[in-house]
Formats: sequence, structure tokens, C-alpha cells
Amino acid sequence: MAGRFINMKNLKFTLHELMAAHQTGTSDLFNGQNRKSIDLILDSSFEFSRKALHPIFEAMDRTPPELKNGTVAVHPDVRKIMTTLGRDGWIAAPFPQKWGGEEMAATILHAVYFIFSAANYSASVYSGLTSGAAKLILTYGSESLKKRYLPPMLDGRWQGTMALTEPEAGSSLGDLATSARPLREQHGQLSERQSSSEGIFLISGEKIFISAGDHDGVDNVVHLLLARIEGAPAGVKGISLFVVPKLRPEKITADAENFKADSSKMVSNDVTVTQTFHKLGYRGAPITALSFGEKGDCMGWLVGEPNRGLSYMFQMMNGARLEVGMGATAIAAAAYEAALDYTRQRRQGRRISDGKGGQPVPIIEHQDVKRMLLFQRSVWEGSLALILQCSIYEDLMHNLPKDQIEKQEEYHLLLELLTPVAKTFPSEMGIISTSQSIQCFGGYGYCEDFPVEQHFRDMRIHTIHEGTTGIQGMDLLGRKVIMKDGKALMLFCREVEKVIERGFKYSDSTSSCRESGAEPSVECARTRELASMADQMRQSLKTLSETTMTLGAMASEKGADAFLANATLYLEMFGYVVIAWQWLFQAVMAMDKLSGDSDISRSDQLFYEGKTLVCRYFFCHELPKIRTLAHTLTMSEPVTMAVETAHFTS
Amino acid sequence: MAGRFINMKNLKFTLHELMAAHQTGTSDLFNGQNRKSIDLILDSSFEFSRKALHPIFEAMDRTPPELKNGTVAVHPDVRKIMTTLGRDGWIAAPFPQKWGGEEMAATILHAVYFIFSAANYSASVYSGLTSGAAKLILTYGSESLKKRYLPPMLDGRWQGTMALTEPEAGSSLGDLATSARPLREQHGQLSERQSSSEGIFLISGEKIFISAGDHDGVDNVVHLLLARIEGAPAGVKGISLFVVPKLRPEKITADAENFKADSSKMVSNDVTVTQTFHKLGYRGAPITALSFGEKGDCMGWLVGEPNRGLSYMFQMMNGARLEVGMGATAIAAAAYEAALDYTRQRRQGRRISDGKGGQPVPIIEHQDVKRMLLFQRSVWEGSLALILQCSIYEDLMHNLPKDQIEKQEEYHLLLELLTPVAKTFPSEMGIISTSQSIQCFGGYGYCEDFPVEQHFRDMRIHTIHEGTTGIQGMDLLGRKVIMKDGKALMLFCREVEKVIERGFKYSDSTSSCRESGAEPSVECARTRELASMADQMRQSLKTLSETTMTLGAMASEKGADAFLANATLYLEMFGYVVIAWQWLFQAVMAMDKLSGDSDISRSDQLFYEGKTLVCRYFFCHELPKIRTLAHTLTMSEPVTMAVETAHFTS
Repeated sequence: MAGRFINMKNLKFTLHELMAAHQTGTSDLFNGQNRKSIDLILDSSFEFSRKALHPIFEAMDRTPPELKNGTVAVHPDVRKIMTTLGRDGWIAAPFPQKWGGEEMAATILHAVYFIFSAANYSASVYSGLTSGAAKLILTYGSESLKKRYLPPMLDGRWQGTMALTEPEAGSSLGDLATSARPLREQHGQLSERQSSSEGIFLISGEKIFISAGDHDGVDNVVHLLLARIEGAPAGVKGISLFVVPKLRPEKITADAENFKADSSKMVSNDVTVTQTFHKLGYRGAPITALSFGEKGDCMGWLVGEPNRGLSYMFQMMNGARLEVGMGATAIAAAAYEAALDYTRQRRQGRRISDGKGGQPVPIIEHQDVKRMLLFQRSVWEGSLALILQCSIYEDLMHNLPKDQIEKQEEYHLLLELLTPVAKTFPSEMGIISTSQSIQCFGGYGYCEDFPVEQHFRDMRIHTIHEGTTGIQGMDLLGRKVIMKDGKALMLFCREVEKVIERGFKYSDSTSSCRESGAEPSVECARTRELASMADQMRQSLKTLSETTMTLGAMASEKGADAFLANATLYLEMFGYVVIAWQWLFQAVMAMDKLSGDSDISRSDQLFYEGKTLVCRYFFCHELPKIRTLAHTLTMSEPVTMAVETAHFTS
Repeated sequence: MAGRFINMKNLKFTLHELMAAHQTGTSDLFNGQNRKSIDLILDSSFEFSRKALHPIFEAMDRTPPELKNGTVAVHPDVRKIMTTLGRDGWIAAPFPQKWGGEEMAATILHAVYFIFSAANYSASVYSGLTSGAAKLILTYGSESLKKRYLPPMLDGRWQGTMALTEPEAGSSLGDLATSARPLREQHGQLSERQSSSEGIFLISGEKIFISAGDHDGVDNVVHLLLARIEGAPAGVKGISLFVVPKLRPEKITADAENFKADSSKMVSNDVTVTQTFHKLGYRGAPITALSFGEKGDCMGWLVGEPNRGLSYMFQMMNGARLEVGMGATAIAAAAYEAALDYTRQRRQGRRISDGKGGQPVPIIEHQDVKRMLLFQRSVWEGSLALILQCSIYEDLMHNLPKDQIEKQEEYHLLLELLTPVAKTFPSEMGIISTSQSIQCFGGYGYCEDFPVEQHFRDMRIHTIHEGTTGIQGMDLLGRKVIMKDGKALMLFCREVEKVIERGFKYSDSTSSCRESGAEPSVECARTRELASMADQMRQSLKTLSETTMTLGAMASEKGADAFLANATLYLEMFGYVVIAWQWLFQAVMAMDKLSGDSDISRSDQLFYEGKTLVCRYFFCHELPKIRTLAHTLTMSEPVTMAVETAHFTS
């Protein structure tokens, strides 16, 4: 398990080139970070991951969390990791200085999260969840809540969670039934404990599948919980957000001081762990079922306004969806590194053209193995570029000068549109990608002696948590694509068109290539190829637009059921187009290097050539799949509309 | 874990309709079995599976085999299962009466194997391997070997294995290094123990990934082992087949009587278990690494002629490949049953067209869930039909009158051509299918509380064992398609054309449909749909043929490396066409029922309508994928040809 789990060169290339493309003029979009300071951050994240996270990648899987005496026991290193990440400022990094942070750009944070997740996905989620939950308190919570909760959470002493899902209302949040009742006079202790302005409620209900919902690696757990205040409207408009700690101070006053992490004064807040699930993978992190208020004594502090909880939660949820995409990307990347390592060393068989003679070659030389490796690269490197691209939109949105409201809105729309894709493409394709990593190992890949079988298991959660693929598809087609009269989609097309033009520009500038009738030079061939891919990109964008229009017509003719029946396939199609855009972008950037720098090192030359080849793979093998999807999506009626339950059960 | 694991109605439909289509005239192709007697066999297999195999599906996974004191300890029920299957004649079923069998048709046996595997894949392999190994001895072994080995193997007291793979020569059988040295005079005991006509050799070497290579559920293990006799030619032409038992009689003579299962007289044959692998899935069956002849005292009995071992082994291998396909099909089927069960019961969300009102509906009513279920059905029911079709070719090949040599040869070629497809399509698509079964459960599917996560893990071995997908692709394109000037492919096209014609026949016969301008009747609509699918099938066959031709041209222009570079994709494409053929066949058979029988029950009507709908799903969603594959396969040069190892490592 000492193998390489990440290709830092690739990460830095993607990050720097992407940032350079957006860091125009003198504006400081990334909070003062430059290439050198970013590399320092990345390198120290890598060192931490190599020393603290990766060595327990296997151990955390083999000794999964167990419920013991009411608490979930996790790997003993979890406490150390949380404390270190707290102490070194990783959990607070995106926060304002006031809270010990440095307002680190989302783009850099996501790159760091990629490193952590590639080293050990399960180990990476504890701090990520805590940071996300704390961010929610920062944005919507009262000053008093901030003072009470942010310090211990950002220190890594208290765990944060998102508590949405309920046993009877999985993806259907509007049906959630956990209730919140204002603490009233009759509760006896109220006058002593609480002023009503504090917004304390008694919480009662069940939550399920709560990641890091309880564990012994922290001193307290802080649930950001959705519940329905008694008398609130039905459905999603009656949901409020609460902070519900596992332990609360014995004596509650409006004074935050009592809430400091003096654990001797903390008492149970009537939150019970009823189960920790035994899972296919992602076994280093506990997923729990929780019961709130079994004894009628679980207090929750309202965050923000009543009945606006779901919209608040979506701040955390959208961030979490990008993080799920990044987690999937990182797992695929780590599995690829293992496969690459193995296929370079394992000798077996001969080149077909060598016939039976000669010595066995490393299996990486077989065409079929190369194809599998190219596929894996196309998935994880393409996904990495996309998620960093989304992060850049996020940073631009937040950091543009205040007078550029329209531009900020545009970046916001782009981020909204691309989030379901950035969550789903790496998660769905990651299943196939890690499966191909196993395939590169043959029988060994199926055994626990190598890490790829674990990556395959760890991967499988990502199409499920933080909104299943089906939910993402409906979000994309039923909400994001049609919002503001399709403005987000239009903006996306404009972004892609920019890259297409850069691809064409090369073929325009090398006029000698067009005239020469002889065997083209390497550079001319590469230029033509780029232009041809730019052309294919434009065609693909057209296919996407036309399919979208046809579906729009179906919506008005046949109704919403037919319109959204194949939303998952629409999302799949969208994903190919989006990743192709990111690959074309990378190929253009590689071309800049290959044609611009005459004294490029041999190693760099191969690296950039590799980028153009993976791009070519994607355009030859993967992108053409949108034609089939377009065909299926635009049929006069979805097949499923004709199918009844009885057809399955007879 | 008391859920349904199999749909017997579907199995019987597929088996009977397929058999009826081939059981023409008075010839008895299936050894006297009729519909009723076959149903008795299937029902008793189901009862055995329900009572003995399925209840330990989980337990065998949770307590995997462990190496203890030199022997692999397996679940205690394994001995009972083997003994029962032996006593009740299941292991001997395909054998001649002389050996206690009834020469059961391959088609029926495969249907039985489907039931066993759906109930508990790991539990099903012990007897299957034993039967396959015994069959090899029956076909190529000496009378003396048969007398010694067949009775205890067919009784279920001795385990059979296939011992091919070696640590340094996985898929590359030509490189295998296990050696065989004739027992010579200087060995001291020879004259007493052995006449040279017995063909005893001293075996020395290592084998790896040997399924059921050792366990305590039997009294002895019989390895059908490939090794190289000293001085034999290099490569695949110098490989011989041996019987190598774990225990041998203390006193060896040419007399078979000494070899009867009198374990008191048995001694170690110097076969050592060096490892039992801990695996992703398929954990109920031990996969072992074995060392032969560490003390120089491991005896192997030559089977048949020297240096012809590989061709002998391929009898067992071809059978094993069909069984792998069937195992994958059965796992996908069982996972589907679990998903179907869950999606019918689980209520969540509302129909989109119902808006926010109303009660939550069973999730099977959501279009996206229906789509996932249709996909799963299209995979496993299509694969089941294909493997039974292959089995029918096998039976026809063996049971046709002796004077129909040409016809027998045709069936043999069809079986050869379709075996890599029947092995690979269910194995590769089964990964996605079981993944979709998990997806139907949402978060619950990721947990051990439901069986689908185990099905997903059990499934993943199938693209690896008995020849990886890459090997199957090269077998199909590099050997099967081009053998005898493409005769097998031509015969296949003829078979498909037969079904196409039956599809068109309906539209010809319902002339009223063609003339009517009004809204078509249900029957007319169905007829048109069938004709349209028949047309798509013909187009697809054309695409396959054209792609094959283009690849042939590439072979002569660019050489074998380019020709076979994307053989895996060719196999994938071939798979879609083959499964489409089986679906069209099923749709035609369903149409026979729907249009022929006026007093068909409502339940049957829904069943047959369901068949036509799954067929429609496959033709709308899956079959069109061949266009993309054809596009990629026929590009002027495979992308991988331009990629060097250094492109991955810089």
C-alpha cells in the first residue's frame, strides 16, 4: 500500500492553466495567491496526505465503525487527523480571518480536497463535512450561534453534519417529518434556561444515512438538521434549519461563554445513534441512523428564518455535490495510478506483431490495456478540470468587484447549471473507470492485496449520496436548463464557443499547413487534429441544443412526465459534452506549450502530447456516444411511458 | 434474505419457446425430455436452491474461506451440498448411464445452473467445476483414469478443478512453466509402483487463482492441470494435460481397485495450498494458490496424448465460459428480483404530473426507475436467451443423426463464434446492471442489509475468470470471425435473418393495418413496431458486417496490432447485435402468443406485452450504441497506436 496515489504534475497543470486563463488583468480573483504560494499549499497537503491519510487507507476499510455503548467507534487516527486539520487551519481555510481562516479560494480548496480524497476518501470527509456545516452557520446563523459553534468546529474538536434524509422520505425532502416545537413556558425550565429570542425548539424525529453522524474522534457532533416547525406549510416550503448538537451545555443562557468547549459542563441533548450501517465501501466513515428527542429533551437552535431551511441547506448541498464529484474524481485518479503502476511492471504476453517470439512485454504495451488507461485518464482528468472550472466560477462570482453584478450572476448561473454534471459524471463514469482499473490487474485486481477493489467499492456511493443521479437529472433538465429562459445553457454554449475558437485559431495561424501537399509535419498534423476536434465540439453543442429544443417541445405536447422521463440520459449526454469541452480546453493549453516553447523538455513534451492524445481518445471513443443518446432522447415517446407496473410483475 | 431470487416463469418461457423452435419434426434432440419432464427438473432444482443454497447466500460471503493447518476451511454446508448434488445425480447428469448419468441435454443443464447460481453463485461453482473436470477425464482420459476418478467425483466426494493459470503467465498460457518429468527407474519405487504405460509424471510448479483448489468440504481434490513435459516444444504446442490429485493411494498399481475412496489408504501427493485469496466478492468459494511438488513427490497422470493438453482443456474451458456467462446472468437476475421487490414496496415521491399533491407512490411508478428496471431485464433476460440458444446449438451438434455432418459442423461454428459473446456480454453488462439494482434501492442498496451490494461484488469476477474480456475480444475478432473464411459469421447472419423474416411476416399478414388511415388498433401498432424492429435488426446486421469488412481491410493495410487494437469494442458491438437478435426472437414469440390465442389470461397477456416492451427498450436505448462503436472501430487508425508508454509516465 506504499504505491503512488496521485499525479501532482497533472493537478498543478490543470489548476494553473485554468486559473491563468481566468486571472486576467490586475484583478485579484484568488485572494492574493500566486503559482508559487499555491504550490506550497498543494505540496504541504500532499505531504500530510502521504504521511497521515494514505497509510491508513486500508486499515480504515478493514476495521469499519462499530456502534459501542451508544457511540460509534472509529479508527483511532480520526481524532489525530481532525485535530491536525483544525490546528493547521485546513477546516477554517475558506473562512474570514475573524474566524481564523484566510478566505482561501474555492479553486485551491478543491484542489486540496482532491489530494486528501485520493489518499483516503473516507478520512477526507470528516473535516469536509465540518467545514461545510460551519459555513452554513457562518452564512445564516445568529452571532450567538457563530460564537458558540464555529471555534470548536473549526478547531476540529466538534464534527459537523448535514441531517436531511429520513427513513420514509429519502429523496423526497418535502415529505420529511421531523418536527420542531418551540420551547414554551410549560416546559418548566424555560425561563431559567432560555429567552425566546434564542429560538430554541424541541426536536423530534428520525434521520438516516447521516455521514459522520456520530463518532468518538471528536468531543461533540453538530447536526445541521432540517425539520418542520409545528403548523408550518406542507411540502418543501415548511422546512426550517436547526443546529442540533449531540451535547449541549447543562445550563443554557443567551451567553455564548458557557458554551465553550468545557466538556465537563456538557450534557446529552437526547440524540441517539440507532444504527451504524455496514456498507459496500466508504467504510472508514460512519453512516448512521439517528433518533432525535426520544425523551422529549432534544433542543435545536433555529438558523435564520423559519421555513427557509431548504434554501439555506442548498448552500451546503451545492458545495457537497461538487465535493462528491471531486471525491469520485479522486478515487478514480488513485485507482488509475495503481493500475498504471501495475501495468508498467507486469510483464505478460507479447506484442501481436511480434508473434510468438521475443520476451513478454509490460502489459501497458498492449493496445487493449492502453485503451483502458486512456479511458480512465479521460474520466478523472476531465472531471478534475470540470470541477476546478466550477470552482473558478464560484471564486469569480464571489470576488468580482461589486459593480459587476451582471457578470457575477452569469457565473452563478454557470455554476448552477454545471453542478449536477460535476456531481454525476465523475460518479457514474467513476464506477466504470475503477472497474477498468481492476481489469488492468486481471485476477489480482479482484483481491484485497491491491487497492483497486476498495476504490471500486468506495466509488459506488457517489451516485447515491447528496442526491441520486435521477435527482440530478431532473435538477438539470427540469430546473437548471429551463430557468431564466435557458440563459444558463446559453452562457454555457458561449463558454464552449470560446474554447472552440481557440482550437480553430491554430489552424488559421499555420497557413503553411494548408498549402503543403506533402506529408504534413508533426505540428501541422496536430493542428489539423485540433481543428477537427473543435469542429466536432461545435457539432456536439449543436446536437445538445437541438435535443434540448425537442425535449422542450415534448414538454408542451406530452407533459412533464414525458419531458423528464429520460432526464438521466439527458444528464449523461450533457456530461459528455461538458467533459469534451474541458478536454478541448486542455488540448488547446497543451498546444500552447508544444508550439510556443522551443526549448521544452522532453518530459514536458511527452506530458503535453499525452494530453492531446487523451483528448483525441475522448473525442473518438466517448463523445460520439451523444449521438445515440440524442437519438433515444428525441424519440416520439419515451419507452417507459408505455410500461405499467403489471408488466414487471406478471 | 427471504426475498425471491428468480423468476421461474421467465426461465420456462425462454427455455420452452426456444426449444420448441428447434425441436422440429420427430427427431429427439433433447434426449426424450418434454415440457412436463423438464418442468419437473426445473422445479426440483428450484426447491433445492430455495432450501439449501439461498439461505446461506449471505453467510458464505460473511465467513469466507480461510487457510487453516494447510487446508481451506469453507462453509460447513458445502459438504452437504456436494453430497446431495452427487447423490441426486446432478453432477453426473450430463454423463452416460454407465457413469450414473442420463445424458441430460446441455440446454436443460444450463437452465438448472441458472437457478443454482441465482440462488447462490459461490455455492454453485463447486459442483459445476467437478462436473466439468470429470467430463474432461471422460472424453480424453484412459479407462483406468475414468474408473479411478469418475465415481468419487460424480458422487460429490471429490472436487474437480481446472489448474491453468500461473503467477508469471496469467492470460499468456504459452508461457506456463509448470514442469512434468517422467517417473524413471532411478526413482526407486517405480518398478513396484508403476508401469510406464500408466503415464505417471513428477509435477513441479505453481498455480494461482484456482477456484475450489482446496477445501474441507470434500475428501479429495482432483486438479486437471496443464504442464510442460521436459523437452516439449516452447509455447502452446508443448503443453500437456494431467490429472493431479491432492491425495493419492499409498500403493500405486495399474489396478484401479486400490484407488477407490478408501481414504485410510490415501497419502499426500505433495500439493500445497500456499494462499487463499481474500476477494471483492465470490467469497463463498475459495480461490487458491497452489504449489505442486515442493518435496519432489507430486505425481500427475497424463491425460490423452502429450502436448495436446491445451486443446483438451478448451473443451472444459468453452463449457466454463458459457457457465461464467450464465453465472453472471443469474447474478444479474437475482439482483433484479431484489430491486423489483423493493421498488414495488418502497413509496416515495409523486408522479411528476401529479405535482405536489397526492400520496407518495411506489417508486416503480417513476419513469427513471422503470427505465432502470427495463435495462436490467434487457440484460439478464437477453443474456439468458443467448446462453440457452448456445446450449441448443451444443445439443443439436451432439444429437443430430450421424449423417448430418455438415449441419453438425454449422452448429459447432455457431457455438464457437457465440461463446466469447455469451461469456462477455452478461459479465460486462452485469456490472452495470447490478450497479443499477443498487441504484434502485438508493442508500439502502449500498448497505449490507440488502443483497444487491453482494451481487455487485460477486458479479465483478466474471469479466476476469476463464479469460478476460480482452482475451475474449481477440478470440472473437482474431480467430472466430476469420476462421473458415468467415463462415461462422455468415451462419450467424443467416440465423438472425430467420428471425427478421418472422418479424416482417406479421406486418405482411395483417394487411388491414397497412390500408387503414385511422388510429391503428393495438394489434396493428404492435405489428408495425415489430416490423420496425426487424428492420432495425437488419440494418444493425449490415453495420456489423461492414465494420467487420473495414477491419479486415485494416488488417492487411496496417497489420495485426491495428486490426486487433479495439477487439474489445468489436466484441461489445457484436454483443449488442447478438442480444438484439435474442430480443427480437422473444418479441416474435410473444407476438405469436398475443395474436394467436384469443382466450389468453390477463396475466399472460401482460407477461407477453412486457416481453415486447423490454425488446422495444433494447432497440431504442441499447442497440443504437453500435453506431458509435462502428464509428470508433472504423476510424483510419486506432488512437492507442499513437500512444507510447512514456505518454502515461511523463
